[in-house]
Amino acid sequence: MKAKVYITLKDGVLDPQGKAVMGALDSLGYSEVKDVRVGKLMELELSAASKEEAEKRIREMSEKLLANTVVEEFSIEIEGGE
Amino acid sequence: MKAKVYITLKDGVLDPQGKAVMGALDSLGYSEVKDVRVGKLMELELSAASKEEAEKRIREMSEKLLANTVVEEFSIEIEGGE
Repeated sequence: MKAKVYITLKDGVLDPQGKAVMGALDSLGYSEVKDVRVGKLMELELSAASKEEAEKRIREMSEKLLANTVVEEFSIEIEGGE
Repeated sequence: MKAKVYITLKDGVLDPQGKAVMGALDSLGYSEVKDVRVGKLMELELSAASKEEAEKRIREMSEKLLANTVVEEFSIEIEGGE
């Protein structure tokens, strides 16, 4: 089973990396870009009895390890069957 | 207009960061995870006359700056209207 976890900074958390990317885009002439926020994308390949089971396990993994829930939030997307 | 750019390593490119995450998950007891690949997610806020125009500009930005197209591939998702 394949799954994706999208990890983004919570609203209100400063994102200096995003600001740096925005500055670089601006200096390349892409001044229409008003904001950039940089997040992470984790693609997991895992075995699970069901989508529900996979989602439950991935939620645990995200809270324990993948995301820093103090400043980040995450969403999970599970693709197809086994 | 909001857009997301998903940047992932091409198939066949080694991902030591993903392997490290997988090892950490395994040591936490999540041995059902068979592979992890870590990518980036960029959320852009930009102004553009149309979705097509936005996509064209973001494709350029991705090729020039956001992604390293030697080892990475990207996909673009444009949300809603202005």
